Amino acid sequence: MKKYVYLFSEGNKEMKALLGGKGANLAEMLSLGLPVPKGFTITTEACNKYYENQESLPESIQQEILETIKKLESITGKTFGDPENPLLLSVRSGAQASMPGMMDTILNLGMNDEVVSAFVKQTKNPRFVYDSYRRFIEMFSDVVKGIDKSYFESQIDLLKKEKNITSDLDLTEEDMYKLTNIFKEIYKKATMEEFPKDPREQLLQAVEAVFKSWNNERAIYYRKLNDIPNNWGTAVNIQEMVYGNRGENSGTGVAFTRNPATGENKLYGEYLMNAQGEDVVAGIRTPNPISKLESEMPLVYKEFENISKILENHYHDMQDMEFTIENGKLYMLQTRNGKRTGVSAIKIAVDMVHEGKIKEEDAILSVDPNQIDSLLHKTFDPKELSLKEPIVTGLAASPGAACGHLYFSAEEAIEAHKNGEKVVLARLETSPEDIEGMHHAEGILTIRGGMTSHAAVVARGMGKCCVSGCNEARIDIEKKLLIIKNKTFQEKDIISLDGSTGYVYDGAIKEIDPTISGDFKEFMSWVDRIKTLKIRANADNETDAKIALDFGAEGIGLVRTEHMFFERMRIFNFRKMILANDKEERKRFLEQILPYQQQDFENIYRAMKEKPVVIRYLDPPLHEFLPKTEEEIEELKNSLQITSEEMRNRMNALKEFNPMMGHRGCRLLITYEEIAIMQTKAVIKAAINVYKEGIYVVPEIMIPLTGDLKEFEFLQSIIIETAEQLMKDAQCNIKYEIGTMIEVPRSALLSGEIATKAQFFSFGTNDLTQFTYGFSRDDAGKFLNDYHEKLIFDQDPFSRIDEKGVGILMKVAITEARKVRPNISLGVCGEHGGEPKSIEFCQKLGLDYVSCSPYRVPIARVAAAQASIKANQSK
Amino acid sequence: MKKYVYLFSEGNKEMKALLGGKGANLAEMLSLGLPVPKGFTITTEACNKYYENQESLPESIQQEILETIKKLESITGKTFGDPENPLLLSVRSGAQASMPGMMDTILNLGMNDEVVSAFVKQTKNPRFVYDSYRRFIEMFSDVVKGIDKSYFESQIDLLKKEKNITSDLDLTEEDMYKLTNIFKEIYKKATMEEFPKDPREQLLQAVEAVFKSWNNERAIYYRKLNDIPNNWGTAVNIQEMVYGNRGENSGTGVAFTRNPATGENKLYGEYLMNAQGEDVVAGIRTPNPISKLESEMPLVYKEFENISKILENHYHDMQDMEFTIENGKLYMLQTRNGKRTGVSAIKIAVDMVHEGKIKEEDAILSVDPNQIDSLLHKTFDPKELSLKEPIVTGLAASPGAACGHLYFSAEEAIEAHKNGEKVVLARLETSPEDIEGMHHAEGILTIRGGMTSHAAVVARGMGKCCVSGCNEARIDIEKKLLIIKNKTFQEKDIISLDGSTGYVYDGAIKEIDPTISGDFKEFMSWVDRIKTLKIRANADNETDAKIALDFGAEGIGLVRTEHMFFERMRIFNFRKMILANDKEERKRFLEQILPYQQQDFENIYRAMKEKPVVIRYLDPPLHEFLPKTEEEIEELKNSLQITSEEMRNRMNALKEFNPMMGHRGCRLLITYEEIAIMQTKAVIKAAINVYKEGIYVVPEIMIPLTGDLKEFEFLQSIIIETAEQLMKDAQCNIKYEIGTMIEVPRSALLSGEIATKAQFFSFGTNDLTQFTYGFSRDDAGKFLNDYHEKLIFDQDPFSRIDEKGVGILMKVAITEARKVRPNISLGVCGEHGGEPKSIEFCQKLGLDYVSCSPYRVPIARVAAAQASIKANQSK
Repeated sequence: MKKYVYLFSEGNKEMKALLGGKGANLAEMLSLGLPVPKGFTITTEACNKYYENQESLPESIQQEILETIKKLESITGKTFGDPENPLLLSVRSGAQASMPGMMDTILNLGMNDEVVSAFVKQTKNPRFVYDSYRRFIEMFSDVVKGIDKSYFESQIDLLKKEKNITSDLDLTEEDMYKLTNIFKEIYKKATMEEFPKDPREQLLQAVEAVFKSWNNERAIYYRKLNDIPNNWGTAVNIQEMVYGNRGENSGTGVAFTRNPATGENKLYGEYLMNAQGEDVVAGIRTPNPISKLESEMPLVYKEFENISKILENHYHDMQDMEFTIENGKLYMLQTRNGKRTGVSAIKIAVDMVHEGKIKEEDAILSVDPNQIDSLLHKTFDPKELSLKEPIVTGLAASPGAACGHLYFSAEEAIEAHKNGEKVVLARLETSPEDIEGMHHAEGILTIRGGMTSHAAVVARGMGKCCVSGCNEARIDIEKKLLIIKNKTFQEKDIISLDGSTGYVYDGAIKEIDPTISGDFKEFMSWVDRIKTLKIRANADNETDAKIALDFGAEGIGLVRTEHMFFERMRIFNFRKMILANDKEERKRFLEQILPYQQQDFENIYRAMKEKPVVIRYLDPPLHEFLPKTEEEIEELKNSLQITSEEMRNRMNALKEFNPMMGHRGCRLLITYEEIAIMQTKAVIKAAINVYKEGIYVVPEIMIPLTGDLKEFEFLQSIIIETAEQLMKDAQCNIKYEIGTMIEVPRSALLSGEIATKAQFFSFGTNDLTQFTYGFSRDDAGKFLNDYHEKLIFDQDPFSRIDEKGVGILMKVAITEARKVRPNISLGVCGEHGGEPKSIEFCQKLGLDYVSCSPYRVPIARVAAAQASIKANQSK
Repeated sequence: MKKYVYLFSEGNKEMKALLGGKGANLAEMLSLGLPVPKGFTITTEACNKYYENQESLPESIQQEILETIKKLESITGKTFGDPENPLLLSVRSGAQASMPGMMDTILNLGMNDEVVSAFVKQTKNPRFVYDSYRRFIEMFSDVVKGIDKSYFESQIDLLKKEKNITSDLDLTEEDMYKLTNIFKEIYKKATMEEFPKDPREQLLQAVEAVFKSWNNERAIYYRKLNDIPNNWGTAVNIQEMVYGNRGENSGTGVAFTRNPATGENKLYGEYLMNAQGEDVVAGIRTPNPISKLESEMPLVYKEFENISKILENHYHDMQDMEFTIENGKLYMLQTRNGKRTGVSAIKIAVDMVHEGKIKEEDAILSVDPNQIDSLLHKTFDPKELSLKEPIVTGLAASPGAACGHLYFSAEEAIEAHKNGEKVVLARLETSPEDIEGMHHAEGILTIRGGMTSHAAVVARGMGKCCVSGCNEARIDIEKKLLIIKNKTFQEKDIISLDGSTGYVYDGAIKEIDPTISGDFKEFMSWVDRIKTLKIRANADNETDAKIALDFGAEGIGLVRTEHMFFERMRIFNFRKMILANDKEERKRFLEQILPYQQQDFENIYRAMKEKPVVIRYLDPPLHEFLPKTEEEIEELKNSLQITSEEMRNRMNALKEFNPMMGHRGCRLLITYEEIAIMQTKAVIKAAINVYKEGIYVVPEIMIPLTGDLKEFEFLQSIIIETAEQLMKDAQCNIKYEIGTMIEVPRSALLSGEIATKAQFFSFGTNDLTQFTYGFSRDDAGKFLNDYHEKLIFDQDPFSRIDEKGVGILMKVAITEARKVRPNISLGVCGEHGGEPKSIEFCQKLGLDYVSCSPYRVPIARVAAAQASIKANQSK
């Protein structure tokens, strides 16, 4: 028969999936000989059984729990529910990953009136016992029955008012006794039942409540945010109580083996005497720093310091510990790898290598790649920040801190910035025309749009702070007002944005520039030595290219040529081109665009110093470039010398029902081959020019949205013909390659055929995800929340590659392509290229590189190194 | 070395792919001992080499041709270019499939001034020789140099005017001589070159011209229409000339072994004495019926009749033959399986079985399934039709003939039809709200939209005549006018539509009802005995279900439940539902819709008499149902008791960027599970009601757009819960199944997982094609024409399943699904289910059924039988 309950003595730290993190570590501490209150763990598999059994604990598991209680009784020499020598328990949840949001803890379980009166006799401390009893009733009511804590807390407040006292510590034994009765009454009113007397019933209800809390809204939301699968389930830890509130010789606390904010190698934490765990975090009494324990209880401190060293050395990582002191005896209640800031993570990792405690590989694995982000952006001065309250919260769309004068249009933002002002651009939502304004702003605030809205994606690409989807704020664009709750901001008012938290502040806050310490540099040097996947950047201009290089990019994986058209001067000619009446007119306007594009390429080539540069030809549907304001339309109409009606007709002709599945990518280039010719001229002429300067770049020309070999061949032959002619004219031989995006399912399926002609592939996982699922990123917002709430999706496939579906297509494409062209260069560009889990998957797939926004390059490097280490470990 | 040229004696009828149809059949006739002028064939592979070699014939192939000419010289005893005994040649194209649009024929090749004067001596017939010479110059100029024939013909007309004669036959030997010189001058003016004298040069230029014509616009267009791959290429046949214009004892003609219009078993054809082939078709002289040859040249007729029997028996099919009589001797120039009408095809097939000439299987294979269509629809009386000219041509969107009074709105059409008028509905384009009006019309004419526009798809579904995309016509909706060229039609004017040709006629034409003769019935009985694939129909109501049954459907493969909502009464409640403010309000409106939907299902169940019925739950995005006119919006707003602004907001909330990839299918049902519950109630309650009447239907509930097992499970559990409760309440046990569409690539990839829960699959190949290619049918129109013109697409993937891409996904899905559920029912619904080539592919895939519109069921049955026969043959 399957085992669903494990005594601590039966577990160890490797059994996290089954026992949860807390349970596995309690077992491990026990095996290290550390003082751990005795107990057992009900497994995560029992949690899944609970759900399979219509949210009810199967009879057999109930039996197994009660039998294990018997064992615990014999180990502790106490008896559950026995008034003479009662076994009292704590019940705590513990999933495989640390997971706030779930029901947490019930202490003192096993109490009832009979047990309590016996316990009074035994401890001779009635105040302590009734305090424990009322806490138990309150916690049980809250977590098992969902009765809000405020019902109970308000009664305590009332009592204190009556007695004119302020501290809980001033409540007498009488008061505590009174409270237990009041609390039982509250329970009865709310549930229409008596508070359960039978400890076994208390226990089973508590266990079910823990399992049930696995699927409460907050827990689901947390899992969604952190990509934790819904089917992991939680374990429950049942442990003999130890009491930090037993008197002045007792206490409780939490501590880290090193400083989680700075990484300093020194015990860091706090404790309270005569208190239970919740008091430390509740904030009613101010805890003492852990260092004070050294003078207060030198022996206990010595023992704790010793244990913390044992644990750090044993786990090879900084530990986050909970402890309780009962009548002068130390008990360890929990240990786990401690959460830490990015700075701290790097320092601890590097220090521990220097201390000889871990290897460089372990150091790399100990850092969450996403934390690197905080090292690369401005932050607010923590001292000033602690004095400020955010006035509203939006989505933390792109990290960093920004403060500046408020402007409501790109034009005004640019103007103000040119006049020397620091600017925050506030928009309902942004569109490609705002890009230049975004460049000039310190930060961007939008009212609509999610984490993958235009503003968010572009800002992340620029490494610019952005708070998006700030629904609670309103913008009056006419009057140039930003209205947040009762406060109205006008143009030029100063606000501050924190893109790492989504907070918006009134007024200015001092910013701190990112400092890349020596530790970070050393750390990244290990990363680069170990990783095998190459990291390229998506960069559309010289500036981005330089940033990418500074951040360690090994090439450019994606130049989106369309982004070059949005600058004021160019977009005008570009619009004339797309609205041209015929091929001849279109060619004329293209000729005007060519010099700009060529210049851009030259600058990028020079910046990249012969590193690879992949240039994708025009991809989006043309109507994305259409003018929007009446003024712009009028100006364009006049320049084209056509009537308003004709202008409307031409603009309407570009409308599409499903632009994502419309006339875009290579389809556009096939219809308007003159665009492909112009772009080839720009790519090759630029290469010829820098060649003359001694820079030998090999441009990689990438055709978007290929779905059929013939599409590729058609454009390939146009490109080759154009390029060969240019080289002949210039009497100069440039190497170049022609490859394609793999972003529609059909090209993945037929990759073997396409690879006979294409010299490289880059997976456009954004589009590939859209087409494989059959939903567009722009529209999925309408149902993705429902999908998360109804447990249909564990993760957002636009954030992390869907390995099961999209991943299969990638695998097929890679296998078939390598069959016909073994050395074909294979990469990923798009948002997934900067996401650590997806990078690990790319390593498994055997890709050559990933390409991401410049600001994610360091993150990608760390993720790649981790992927490489894991790959070696699993060999 | 590869062989590119074959003497007729080296070929046979099986070598069509290499020698083309004409070449293979000439070889075959030779081997049967029939009188065929000697010659050889240049292969289709040479054509492909020509294109690989930048549209130029490789040197080696030129050599091979000239060497084979030497062999032909030795066979014929004549010498190419020899003035004494010249070998003169015909050059004719011949692809694997008969393919109009390519360059066809050059006769008399090998002539030059020297040869001609010798030939005059030899034949003693200078008029004949100069006639042949001027024809040669004209044909060569036309097909090799692209000089329009009118330049030459106008000179003949001029000469006849000068001489005041009307018939070419009255032109003298002098006139002919004069014309040869004039024609050479025209050639020189147009090309700036002398007319080539060297027969070898003439020959090689002619061969290249044939190859080049493979890719002229008309040929490409024809291939696109007929799904002929671009890479087949054409062969060229070089043959010794025989002359039907050598005098009164010579002649030429074409004939069929049976009547191609009626199928009557009697030689059918026509001939002209003293003429070359082109004269028969040119219409200058009226040819004689073939029967006249019996009295004119009884021996030749006898021989021809005999040969025609030999050929029909040998080819086991009705033959279409060309022949020439030179000085009383009969030569066969071509034979091929004859094209025929649907009626004729059936009669010939059945007759030949009765005559013991072919087996039933061969009879089935001899009929083009698409031809069956003409047997199922009204047609115009051919006698009346022959007197009419179409006034404009649109797309032949849905077959059949219709004539009626013109109306411009659905409402007015319905009204007029209720008053007893026959109605033709003319619309700019149709939308779902026109469906009721379309039902009441005899035929539908639209100005915009292609073969897969709403009007076309719905009309085909209804079996209703439709001419769509009639771009040359205009509609003035305000004034109720249809303007075609110079003619303006008003409301109530009578027009006639031929949906099989796309022709529109002014006034009424007599219609003929389809007659299903005894032959047809017998033929279909063989079909049903032989086919293994089951044929279901897509039917959304009782009427369609009954038609489907009459046409031999074995079940319903798709009930599109959304189509039930468009009737005037229902759409109002449905719109209230989709604009409801919250779940409760939505449920209330759903309750109002339930009885209608339930009634519809009951009627369908009764009609289908326990045959399978697959019911797909609500699929399209909700905004498709939104009201469009101001009136409708106003009415709805009042009924919902909300403000105009609120109304606008709710309508806007349903807008999507890419509706095809938006909130639709199961995504909608997951967000609004109350819709799934309502539909389940309707399905199950209806089943319970007919169960009580003794009809034991097993409804197959189909979830649309599934991409993940969890989506399916979520809805499955809601459906089961609802169904079980209903059955419990009714104390009645109904069997039902729950399955899913496979229409997004991800569900195909993960079909093994989904099949663990889904009881059946139906491939939605329309959507699967859209997502696999990444383009939508609504938008692809913008570039698909370019794709065909630029040879990127051979066929339209929306008409015929893309076997290479979409087909792979289907194969994977089938294999994986059968692994976990060996007996899973697998079908295809959607447009491809009625397309013969796609049906053959479905047979190969091992599907259980295809489902198509009721009017295509007989076509699908024939296609399925053919697929089955082919599958057995290839075993």
